[in-house]
Amino acid sequence: MRLSEIYQSVRDDLTEVERQFKLLAEDKRDSFPELHRMLKHVLVGGKVIRPALTLLSGRLFSYNRDRTLPMATASELLHIATLVHDDAIDEADTRRGRPTVNKLWGLDKAVLLGDYLFARAGEFAATTGNIRVVGLFARTLQIISSGELKQAFGAFSLEQSFEQYRERIAGKTAGLIVMATESGAILGSASEEEIQIMKDYGYNLGLAFQIVDDILDFIGDEKEMGKPVGSDLAQGTITLPSLLLLKRHPTDNPVAKIFAGKEPAENIRRAVAMISSSSIIDESYSIAQDYISEACQHLKRLPDSQHRRSLLALADYIIRRQK
Amino acid sequence: MRLSEIYQSVRDDLTEVERQFKLLAEDKRDSFPELHRMLKHVLVGGKVIRPALTLLSGRLFSYNRDRTLPMATASELLHIATLVHDDAIDEADTRRGRPTVNKLWGLDKAVLLGDYLFARAGEFAATTGNIRVVGLFARTLQIISSGELKQAFGAFSLEQSFEQYRERIAGKTAGLIVMATESGAILGSASEEEIQIMKDYGYNLGLAFQIVDDILDFIGDEKEMGKPVGSDLAQGTITLPSLLLLKRHPTDNPVAKIFAGKEPAENIRRAVAMISSSSIIDESYSIAQDYISEACQHLKRLPDSQHRRSLLALADYIIRRQK
Repeated sequence: MRLSEIYQSVRDDLTEVERQFKLLAEDKRDSFPELHRMLKHVLVGGKVIRPALTLLSGRLFSYNRDRTLPMATASELLHIATLVHDDAIDEADTRRGRPTVNKLWGLDKAVLLGDYLFARAGEFAATTGNIRVVGLFARTLQIISSGELKQAFGAFSLEQSFEQYRERIAGKTAGLIVMATESGAILGSASEEEIQIMKDYGYNLGLAFQIVDDILDFIGDEKEMGKPVGSDLAQGTITLPSLLLLKRHPTDNPVAKIFAGKEPAENIRRAVAMISSSSIIDESYSIAQDYISEACQHLKRLPDSQHRRSLLALADYIIRRQK
Repeated sequence: MRLSEIYQSVRDDLTEVERQFKLLAEDKRDSFPELHRMLKHVLVGGKVIRPALTLLSGRLFSYNRDRTLPMATASELLHIATLVHDDAIDEADTRRGRPTVNKLWGLDKAVLLGDYLFARAGEFAATTGNIRVVGLFARTLQIISSGELKQAFGAFSLEQSFEQYRERIAGKTAGLIVMATESGAILGSASEEEIQIMKDYGYNLGLAFQIVDDILDFIGDEKEMGKPVGSDLAQGTITLPSLLLLKRHPTDNPVAKIFAGKEPAENIRRAVAMISSSSIIDESYSIAQDYISEACQHLKRLPDSQHRRSLLALADYIIRRQK
């Protein structure tokens, strides 16, 4: 199923989220031309998976549009803010094939724009009027930033286990996806048991989402992804495919050479070739599929509905996506 | 009056705020050794003016300790988070005479630690259970970051008016001080009129606070301040004293030369000498004093009390401080 079909039942509300982005970029508050230009550049909308998750999760229960819409907007804004800071820290030149904020305006402005977007996201979260959701929002940013910090301190280290990798992607990616599904359930007045189901669905979906991202970093189409293959290795980040490569070839491994600073460009090319031509890709997909299956199993404890079917289809989309 | 005397009536609560900092630095949540070390390094406590303002503002009305304490903690945490990002952006080596986070751990970690502290501050704000205060918190971070962005885009530009300077310091400094006083009043169930008085007091106090900071950047003791004099000019930031110097000497001005990149070290030395030996310092203090007087006038619309006297004494302290 295509994303547009999966989103069909929340299409109007997603359009409203995108309208909020447009309003934000044109907002006269805090207005000066450079800020407007920067906001316009980053608020372009993408797959909007996080707001869709918030909206669909809310629809499963007693949907409250006025409270769920701002949280859906907050989910995507928080995501964008973290990307702006990530790119600044990584000194990345492109994102989705477009120049990054730090590339266009410099690192200092990227840091400040990220801060501004965090604050705007927080304001949307506060607009829900629900203090539990605001606490969840704040806690999520802690999980993301402490997870990223841990990754930064562990960069260029070969001593990593699968558990450490999972813990890292749980913080980096699953945290925000859990916030999206959990907040939808909370704002839909779901029971504690139902909220837990949505957290479990989001957590497993988030892990799978990041594993697929990490696979695509090796086998994806550079044009579609808008960034070079092997970029994780270039930044010293071990992901599932390179973890499996290290396990298979403990000696004479290109990853070890990259991290030791030996001919990095040549060894990145070699690692990408070794991984993409081996069964490591299948093995990685199989692990991602296990998380997808677990996410769906949790969700199936809820009664069947159009929105549940959309969330199941979204899980399926996430593992099949090419970018 | 010394700070310790001014703080006397809220001493116990300030101690509790400082205890919260200690707990946060030792927190087992998100725990890994490097994060602990970083938190310990930044959560050292300073003049704690912002939490004192929140607590004293709350005490003026129906003081609710359980709700005001977390907001006092949030005020200081938000302040520290912005300093961590400021230092990273400015590539500053020292702060209060100690090495900065970016100096010790690198810029990437400083950005992430700042994000983490924003989130922790936001969580404390949410602990108040008051959605209006959470909205104020989010709005304040927007004012600060958009103000800093404006400053970054305007760096090394001589075309600045006093109004632009005031607008800039209103965003950069007064915003957070208004949050401190306003949130105290809101959590103390003050009336809208009383809340407005506390906003007006905080706004004028905040402007004076920053002007004194900007004066000390020229005449302060480097050891006491823990940073070199003239550092604003080195970063391309025009403040009140250099604005007055430009007005008095429109031609052959060292500030213009610094911004044009001509012998910056020598011209910073010259600008500092010209400003600190002229009546510009008195004129700047006189402008700061006007804001202090206005702050106190607003406050005097409230009935006399021990806490009002403390807030008046704090205003007096702010203009007399040497660091």
